Amino acid sequence: MLSTMQDAPLSIAHLLRHGSTVHGDAEVVTWTDSGPRRVSYAQVGRRCAALAHALRGLGVTGDERVATFMWNNSEHLEAYLTVPSMGAVLHTLNIRLFPEQLVHVANHAEDHVIIVDPSLIPLLAPQLPQLTTVKHVIVTGPSTAGLEAPAGVQVHAYEALITDQPEEFDWPEVDEHSAAAMCYTSGTTGDPKGVVYSHRSIYLHSMQVCMSDGPNLRQGDRALAVVPQFHAMSWGLPYAAFMIGASLLMPDRFLQPAPLAEFIAAERPTFAAAVPTIWQGLHLYLEQHPQDISSMREVLIGGAAVPPALMHAFEDEHNVSVLHAWGMTETSPLGSVARPPLDATGEEMWKYRYSQGRFPASVQARLVDDEGKVVPNDGASIGELQVRGPWITASYYGVDAADKFDDGWLRTGDVGTITSDGYLALSDRTKDIIKSGGEWISSVDLENAVMGHPAVAEAAVVGVPDEKWDERPLVAVVFREGSDATVADVQAFLADKVAKWQLPENWAVVQEVPKTSVGKFDKKRIRSDYHDGALSVTRL
Amino acid sequence: MLSTMQDAPLSIAHLLRHGSTVHGDAEVVTWTDSGPRRVSYAQVGRRCAALAHALRGLGVTGDERVATFMWNNSEHLEAYLTVPSMGAVLHTLNIRLFPEQLVHVANHAEDHVIIVDPSLIPLLAPQLPQLTTVKHVIVTGPSTAGLEAPAGVQVHAYEALITDQPEEFDWPEVDEHSAAAMCYTSGTTGDPKGVVYSHRSIYLHSMQVCMSDGPNLRQGDRALAVVPQFHAMSWGLPYAAFMIGASLLMPDRFLQPAPLAEFIAAERPTFAAAVPTIWQGLHLYLEQHPQDISSMREVLIGGAAVPPALMHAFEDEHNVSVLHAWGMTETSPLGSVARPPLDATGEEMWKYRYSQGRFPASVQARLVDDEGKVVPNDGASIGELQVRGPWITASYYGVDAADKFDDGWLRTGDVGTITSDGYLALSDRTKDIIKSGGEWISSVDLENAVMGHPAVAEAAVVGVPDEKWDERPLVAVVFREGSDATVADVQAFLADKVAKWQLPENWAVVQEVPKTSVGKFDKKRIRSDYHDGALSVTRL
Repeated sequence: MLSTMQDAPLSIAHLLRHGSTVHGDAEVVTWTDSGPRRVSYAQVGRRCAALAHALRGLGVTGDERVATFMWNNSEHLEAYLTVPSMGAVLHTLNIRLFPEQLVHVANHAEDHVIIVDPSLIPLLAPQLPQLTTVKHVIVTGPSTAGLEAPAGVQVHAYEALITDQPEEFDWPEVDEHSAAAMCYTSGTTGDPKGVVYSHRSIYLHSMQVCMSDGPNLRQGDRALAVVPQFHAMSWGLPYAAFMIGASLLMPDRFLQPAPLAEFIAAERPTFAAAVPTIWQGLHLYLEQHPQDISSMREVLIGGAAVPPALMHAFEDEHNVSVLHAWGMTETSPLGSVARPPLDATGEEMWKYRYSQGRFPASVQARLVDDEGKVVPNDGASIGELQVRGPWITASYYGVDAADKFDDGWLRTGDVGTITSDGYLALSDRTKDIIKSGGEWISSVDLENAVMGHPAVAEAAVVGVPDEKWDERPLVAVVFREGSDATVADVQAFLADKVAKWQLPENWAVVQEVPKTSVGKFDKKRIRSDYHDGALSVTRL
Repeated sequence: MLSTMQDAPLSIAHLLRHGSTVHGDAEVVTWTDSGPRRVSYAQVGRRCAALAHALRGLGVTGDERVATFMWNNSEHLEAYLTVPSMGAVLHTLNIRLFPEQLVHVANHAEDHVIIVDPSLIPLLAPQLPQLTTVKHVIVTGPSTAGLEAPAGVQVHAYEALITDQPEEFDWPEVDEHSAAAMCYTSGTTGDPKGVVYSHRSIYLHSMQVCMSDGPNLRQGDRALAVVPQFHAMSWGLPYAAFMIGASLLMPDRFLQPAPLAEFIAAERPTFAAAVPTIWQGLHLYLEQHPQDISSMREVLIGGAAVPPALMHAFEDEHNVSVLHAWGMTETSPLGSVARPPLDATGEEMWKYRYSQGRFPASVQARLVDDEGKVVPNDGASIGELQVRGPWITASYYGVDAADKFDDGWLRTGDVGTITSDGYLALSDRTKDIIKSGGEWISSVDLENAVMGHPAVAEAAVVGVPDEKWDERPLVAVVFREGSDATVADVQAFLADKVAKWQLPENWAVVQEVPKTSVGKFDKKRIRSDYHDGALSVTRL
C-alpha cells in the first residue's frame, strides 16, 4: 500500500530558498582586518543565483566538482549553497593538507573549478600546475592579484564574475540521494579518502542540528562557526543556520585568541562551535585580557575529548555552557551529543557531560569486540564503536575500503563503552588498544594514570608483543627535570589506580615522547623504536 | 555522481527500537478512574513485540489495516508503534464519526482488525455487523465483556492475546515511502477522505516536532497529549516522544476540566497539546478551583484560531506559554508554528504570536488568488493557502480529488496573508470568502467588526449573488434583548472600521444564527435560507 504523501525531495536548493526569503533579515558576518563585513541572507540568495549563472558560464554542468580553498567567510557560504543547488558537487579542500595530498585529492575528485581566498593563493599556487582537471580559478574579492595562471587555466575575480548576472536562478529538481558535497578525511595513514554527502544526508543532518537532542540551534541565534568549513562541513552549521534562520559569524583567517575575542565582543554570538584547542587558547587569553563572553549560551566542542577542567572554567568563569559531542567526517559529522538526562544533577550530571554523549534516533550505535561479537551497552563492556544511519557514509569515493565497514555499519576505529541509556565514553583508538589475554587495556587510560604521578612530565603507552598474553603494555615515560623518581616508584603509584593485570611491566625512560605533525603522541614510532631496539626497556 | 551515504530508511521500527532502549526509563502514564497507570518505554518495547506476534497470529501480514477505536492511552501508543513497525497499516478510527461515516471509512480502508477500548464498545458494537472486512476485534484490558461478536468475527482480550508471546520481534525492513498509518478527515461535506502517512513522512514530522522552530519537544519532557490519537495522529506527539525520550501523559476518556486538572496536579506535565476549547474549559474551571499548572512550560494550541484573551490568561494567570500552530490532517499535521522572531517585543511580538505562525523549511507555502495567480507574501495580499512538502498529502486514498490540488500543491481551503518573513494570518475559508468585483472580502473579519457593536449579540456574514459585483455580503445579525438598535445603526458603526466598498448592504435580523453540530456558524444554511426566501432581508 503506497502512502498518499508528496514525493518532495530533501534538497539544498530548498534550504537556500527558505533561508533567503523567510529568514532574509538574518546575516552572515565575516571578520576582516578592518572589522565586520555583513551580507543579509536575502542578499546571499541573490548572490548565489548570480554565482550559479557565472559557474554555468564556466562550463559547470551536471555533477561537476567545484572546489573551495577558503577560510570561513560569506563567499564560502555562497559556494556551500550555490554549488549543490545547481546540481553540481561542492568539494571543500583542506587548506592544511600537505602539498602532495592536496594534489592527490583535487585530481582524484576531478575538480573543474577552484574558488580561493586571496590570502591562500600562496598555498595553492605552487600546486596549481599539477591539478590536471582544473580549468578555472576564482579569487574571492575584486581582484586576482598575486595569481599567475598556469597554461590551460583561467583566472577570475569573484566579484567581477557575478556582477551583472541575473539575481534569480531556476534551481533544478535533484534526486535527494545525489551527491551534494564531498570532503576528504585527513587520515594520518595513507591517502585522504573522500566522503560524498547527499542532499538528503545534509538536509536530515541540518534538522538534527536544530533538534533539542542535538545542538538545538535556534532561529535568531548568532552562530560563531570557528570550526573550518573545510573540516566536515563546519559541523553542518552553515546549512542548519539557513534552515532555522540563525545568523552566521565567520572568523575568516582570524582564528587566534585576540581577534576571536574581539569578534565575540563586537558581534555577540549566542552559539559557537570549535575544537578544544581553540577554546583552551581563548580561555588562557581571557585570563590576561578579561572580557565578558557570556553572550554565548552554549559552545559546541568536538573533534577531540574535552578536558573537564576546560568545561568547568567556561561555566564557572565565563557563564558559558560547554556541549561535548562526538563525530567524524564520515558521520556528517554529528554522532553523539552530551546533553545529560533532565533529572541528572551534580557529579552524575557531569559524568554524562564529560562523556562523548548520547546518540539521537537517527544514529544507531553498537560496540563490537575483537572477535566480531556485539557486546552489550552496559557501560562496562568495551568494543569498537560502529554506527549506522542516513547521514553515515557507506563507502569512500572511488576507493575500496571494505575493511572500514562491517555488514553495513561504519567501523569508527574508536573504542569505548555505551551505557544502557545510550551514552558513549571513548577510551582509545582500535589501533592503540592493548589486547592482553583476551582483555582490552586502554592505552589512554593508562597514560592518564601514569601522568598522574607528580614526577612524570609525560608518558605514552603502546602494546608490545608478548608470548603468553599476546600483548602487554609498554610505557615510554619522561621524568620532570631534577626528579629522582624511578619507574618502580611509578609502578607502585599505579597499584591502587589500575587493575592488577593491567599493571605495565615494560618501561622505557625517554627524553621526549615522539610526536606527529599535529602534536599527538606518535605511537607508530614508539612501536618501531621498540622493535628496532632503539628503546632501552626495563622489565619490572 | 552518487553520494557515498548509507541507504538507511526512515522508519517507525527505528523509533520503536530507539525509544524503548535509549529512553527505556521514560514512561507512558494513562489516567484512569483510580489514578495513574504507568508503563515504561522499555516495557512498551516488549509489549509491542508481543502484540506484533499476536497480530501475525490473527493473520495480519503485508500491508493489512489494523484499526483503533480508542482514547489516548498506553495501548493506543502500542498500536501506533507496533502496527507500522510490522509493515502493516494503522488506521485510527475517529470515535466521533456518525455511524454511517464510521461504516464507510472502515469498509473503505478494508480494516482487518479493530482494537477497541471497553468504554467505547457501545459506540462500535451496533456498527460491527456492517463492517464487512473486519475479522477480529481486540478489546483492551483483561476481558471482552459487553461485546457480542457478529458472525464471522472473533473477539479477543488484549492482555490475554499478548501474554506468553515472545518479547522480541524481528521487525522487517520497510521502504520508507510505504504506508504506515491512515487517518480520514472529518470533512463537514461529503464522505471523510483518507490520508495515508508514510514511514518517511512520520519520521520527518517527528524530527520537526523536536526542532527549535517547531514545538521543540525535549528529552525528559512530560507531554500531556489531550489532542486525540484519532485526530491527525495526536499531532505527531506519540512518535516524537519516542524519538526524543519525552514521557507521554494520556488522559484516556477523562477530558473534562476537573479530571484534567487532577491529572495535571498528579503528573506535572511540562508540555501539552489540545484544541482551544479544552484550554478554555480548563481556564474557566481553574477560576473556581485554583491550582498551579505552571509545570507546563508551553501548551501547543491548534485546530482553530486561539482567542488572544485565552493566550494572555494562560500567561498572566498561570505562567504557561501558549504556542499557536496551524495544520490539518492532510499536513501530518504540523504546518506553521507561531514562534515570534527573537528580537520582537511588546505588541509586535504578540502580533506574531496571535498569527497562525511561521512555516519551517520543510513546508513550502504560497497564496493563490481567484484566478490561479500566486500573490506576494507581503502581509497584505490575500489568497488561498497552498502547501507543499515531504509530510503533505499529494492525494486521498482511493478517491479522485484532483480539485484539492494545484500543480502538486495541496489546496488547504484556508484564505489569508503571509508576511515577507513567513508568518501566516488566516482570515477565512475559501468557501466563505466573499468575491466582490474581483476583490475578496473576509466574512470572518466582517463578522468581528459587526460583533464589535455593543447592541449585537452575534452575527454571521455570507456572500450572496449580485448582478453587478458577482457577490456582496449579507449580514445575519442577532440583537441583544432589549436593544432598540437598527441595522442602519450598525452599518454607520462600521463606516470607519471597514473599507467603503466592503460595507454590507444586505441585512437580515434573526433570532439566532444557525449552528452546525460542532457549534460553528452554519453558513450553508444561511445561504439556503436566503435563496429560499426564508430570510427577511433589508437592503440599505
